[in-house]
Amino acid sequence: MNPSMITSTMQDFPLTVAAILRHGARVFGGSECVTWTGGGTPRRATFAEVAANAERLAAALARLGVREGEPVATFAWNNQEHLEAYFAVPCMGAVLHTLNIRLFPEQLAHIINHAGDKVVIVDDTLVPLLARVIGEIPTVEAFIVVGDGDASALEANPTGAPVLRYRDLLAAEEPGYAWPEVDERSAASMCYTSGTTGDPKGVVYSHRSTFLHAMAVMSASLVGITEADRVLAIVPMFHVNAWGLPYGAFLSGATLHMPGPFMQPEHLTRFVAAERSTLASAVPTIWNAILGYGEDHELDLSSLRAGTSGGAAAPRVLLERFEERYGLRIIQGWGMTETSPLGGMAFPPPGVEPGTAEDLDWRTKSGRVTAGVEMRIVDASGAELPWDGEAVGEIEVRGPWITGSYHRDPAPDKFDGGWLRTGDIGTIDGRGYFQITDRAKDVIKSGGEWISSVELENHLMAHPAVAEAAVIGIPDPRWDERPLACVVLRPGAAATAAELAGFLAGKVARWQVPEYWTFMDEIPKTTVGKFDKKPLRTGHRNAELKIEHVDR
Amino acid sequence: MNPSMITSTMQDFPLTVAAILRHGARVFGGSECVTWTGGGTPRRATFAEVAANAERLAAALARLGVREGEPVATFAWNNQEHLEAYFAVPCMGAVLHTLNIRLFPEQLAHIINHAGDKVVIVDDTLVPLLARVIGEIPTVEAFIVVGDGDASALEANPTGAPVLRYRDLLAAEEPGYAWPEVDERSAASMCYTSGTTGDPKGVVYSHRSTFLHAMAVMSASLVGITEADRVLAIVPMFHVNAWGLPYGAFLSGATLHMPGPFMQPEHLTRFVAAERSTLASAVPTIWNAILGYGEDHELDLSSLRAGTSGGAAAPRVLLERFEERYGLRIIQGWGMTETSPLGGMAFPPPGVEPGTAEDLDWRTKSGRVTAGVEMRIVDASGAELPWDGEAVGEIEVRGPWITGSYHRDPAPDKFDGGWLRTGDIGTIDGRGYFQITDRAKDVIKSGGEWISSVELENHLMAHPAVAEAAVIGIPDPRWDERPLACVVLRPGAAATAAELAGFLAGKVARWQVPEYWTFMDEIPKTTVGKFDKKPLRTGHRNAELKIEHVDR
Repeated sequence: MNPSMITSTMQDFPLTVAAILRHGARVFGGSECVTWTGGGTPRRATFAEVAANAERLAAALARLGVREGEPVATFAWNNQEHLEAYFAVPCMGAVLHTLNIRLFPEQLAHIINHAGDKVVIVDDTLVPLLARVIGEIPTVEAFIVVGDGDASALEANPTGAPVLRYRDLLAAEEPGYAWPEVDERSAASMCYTSGTTGDPKGVVYSHRSTFLHAMAVMSASLVGITEADRVLAIVPMFHVNAWGLPYGAFLSGATLHMPGPFMQPEHLTRFVAAERSTLASAVPTIWNAILGYGEDHELDLSSLRAGTSGGAAAPRVLLERFEERYGLRIIQGWGMTETSPLGGMAFPPPGVEPGTAEDLDWRTKSGRVTAGVEMRIVDASGAELPWDGEAVGEIEVRGPWITGSYHRDPAPDKFDGGWLRTGDIGTIDGRGYFQITDRAKDVIKSGGEWISSVELENHLMAHPAVAEAAVIGIPDPRWDERPLACVVLRPGAAATAAELAGFLAGKVARWQVPEYWTFMDEIPKTTVGKFDKKPLRTGHRNAELKIEHVDR
Repeated sequence: MNPSMITSTMQDFPLTVAAILRHGARVFGGSECVTWTGGGTPRRATFAEVAANAERLAAALARLGVREGEPVATFAWNNQEHLEAYFAVPCMGAVLHTLNIRLFPEQLAHIINHAGDKVVIVDDTLVPLLARVIGEIPTVEAFIVVGDGDASALEANPTGAPVLRYRDLLAAEEPGYAWPEVDERSAASMCYTSGTTGDPKGVVYSHRSTFLHAMAVMSASLVGITEADRVLAIVPMFHVNAWGLPYGAFLSGATLHMPGPFMQPEHLTRFVAAERSTLASAVPTIWNAILGYGEDHELDLSSLRAGTSGGAAAPRVLLERFEERYGLRIIQGWGMTETSPLGGMAFPPPGVEPGTAEDLDWRTKSGRVTAGVEMRIVDASGAELPWDGEAVGEIEVRGPWITGSYHRDPAPDKFDGGWLRTGDIGTIDGRGYFQITDRAKDVIKSGGEWISSVELENHLMAHPAVAEAAVIGIPDPRWDERPLACVVLRPGAAATAAELAGFLAGKVARWQVPEYWTFMDEIPKTTVGKFDKKPLRTGHRNAELKIEHVDR
């Protein structure tokens, strides 16, 4: 080493979930976790109480034999106990594995076995769902049931794992668990991708990535949650750490509103009105359901300063109607399980007047790349493309909260020299706003050009008669592929394929308008509520769809 | 390792100044650095231009022989070129050493030699100040002069170091310098403490600490700068990285307003009015000067959404008057060179009505501990004290942007088992609001109790006849120490010691009211504008002060 070399004098202080917990419990010990109970009084716990329960839970898990680096699963709605596990498990050095309650049984069993989950914490209302795989998850050494409901179905497990009660376990312990010092790069939590293509893959978040992501959640350039916020986390805690809101809340002091199993628009909107939520975060499907519910019911959403939407592109009309009817600005975010998930949010640049067409133009972008994340687009040969808002390529990202591999699955085709290949196709403009036009697998390749299925879907869903629309590419002898529009009409509404094709013709290039149409009762959805195009493609291949043809 | 142990899949992505630069240059390439020129048109450069110049500067420094880990000093006002050095030097792996232009010559020479500065980048207007030590800084191998002013005084350096022009050097280079990959824990920049007690000590910030601190600057719970902001950085770039504003601006897109040498209230307020600054950051002395200037001049501060104040406690009356006269909320921050500096900010909790007495009560707290920083108070024996707002002890902090040592000076008495001893005495309440009552060395120990000199000073400065007041402890045979109040009256105002003592008697415990008083023309100040009590103590010891006695 050069003798004149200067070295840093900074403390070697690790970025850990325990540091988040300490801050929330001490500085914001009076902020609350409020769990909706469906009727009557919501359950309330202060952050100080949540922290004390997390200490008790960690003591109980340690007594059950959970050691550092071992996975403890949750199979739970958004509620106080789930929040306690969010802190107890990583802070004790174990790994929180949030199980998606909407998985098919075979996927669920696969994921539990692939992770090697040692304990499962399960809501009593979800016992029947978990019980479907009870014979196939031999790694589980104990079940911990939240609530007093029947859990006898779990007792049939073949290895004789005990079925314990969360409340009893905590009552037997004292607060004051001594959190170990953990390396910031050690595993804190894990989540499997929803696996719409191929097997689900495990993404393992580190303490460091969790801390940094929580700091990003506090950024004024993004959602910017503060102690003044009451955040309704509709986005499930079983998916990508509920977009970082629980950890962000403990760093910022924002009160958390947890809907539990009450995900119906009626409950969600009653929760907002009763507890004066200031922010709500959900996938477009939920926002859409709230909009629909509001057509027949008076809603008081006046306490909401903003909503955030992610997981799929929100149709322009959704953003527009919330602003018109409720004065509520919904801001889209972009991310993936692999990106923790915050990769970008679609806030308009300064100076744009809210509520104008220009404002909506910006807000229907997929996002603007977030500080802390780096983004690029590359063409099919891997060459980097310019940020000109025109060039279309695959979006790649890197950064301290982006995954660089998968759990026990290196998946080299998902990475490109230190960058994650997102599988999203789109453009980036000179200010870092990106517009995703399609998933790589959903792009319709027609006559050497690409047709964006998402763009067609958004236009169709803006038609007053259309409730849902999904567009897939189907084989075509002349053009390679052509679009097939799958449409769900609103109850009582009527529109023909020809009418809808005419509606599109004014909005996209003529050659992009689908000539193939089919009407159905519902678009199939994935376990996280996104349109699932696999059954549509299979349906077409097996000639199970009734196709109408419209002349181009 | 336990075979079932789960390991993180996150990318190993370093937190570096280069990552901050990339984000600012690319996503916010159109944001600006605006340098005030005193008259006529300010100089403007976009972040993209600043980044390109930083690349040229790095190439020039490399050509001069600067290698990784070596210190490059700046001796400069806040301006565009200083900002370019803020990025060029750390991004090339060298260490930016910002020299305090207000140091006494012997301190300046000591610091340059102690760091071993290899190059000094100096504003032409500051050449005479630097020239005072030209014979005593043999480590310097080149001087780079910003501006076209006379620099011949530097040519007299005994080692024959060349005196180069910044503009010529950059013109000879191309942009596109390939930033090396640096370890995030390597040194990025350094700053010496102002050394009011003992020799100045060097604090060396790492890339990691700089990145994390910049993220904190973006937090909505704190200043929360965004692209919509135009930030007037009055706080000098030569001191603690201008409170992180330059790096925060590149992460958030906030435009930077740089006053250059025009630190007079007239210029600062014209800058705000002309460029519509949204935020301004300065020490209380500057805020006070602006207030004074405003008494005779019409000021347009309407564009400012907030001001921040730090470096010393702002008197309550200062905060009050800015709010009354200009509707401007000044928020106090607390920090030190050792803390990067952000350790806390005194935002009131949610629900407090702005402009009320309660609001001011909160805003005159020293701060509320910032997410990312951990704080505790300890008594003289080192035992931790409760967060009850009552117990008084020394404040200790730790965290990823807190120093753990000093450059080539371990100073073990400044640390306490991983915590930095701040030397500040105060209380913390149950919500993490802390109130510093004194520096450890300024506390007046009277009859076994502590008297807060700061509290007395704040009360005195709220008296309409008082411009400045400093209180020191003087030896007392019976009480150990007793307070001596040193008062500067406003021009034309009159008040006797007895009157002022009576004024205090209604505000503090009777035994805390000083019986010793002296009136002077000015309180001595340190190089960073804080009250300097050393000359007052010396003056008292040498019987140079005219003391009046008031009966208790």
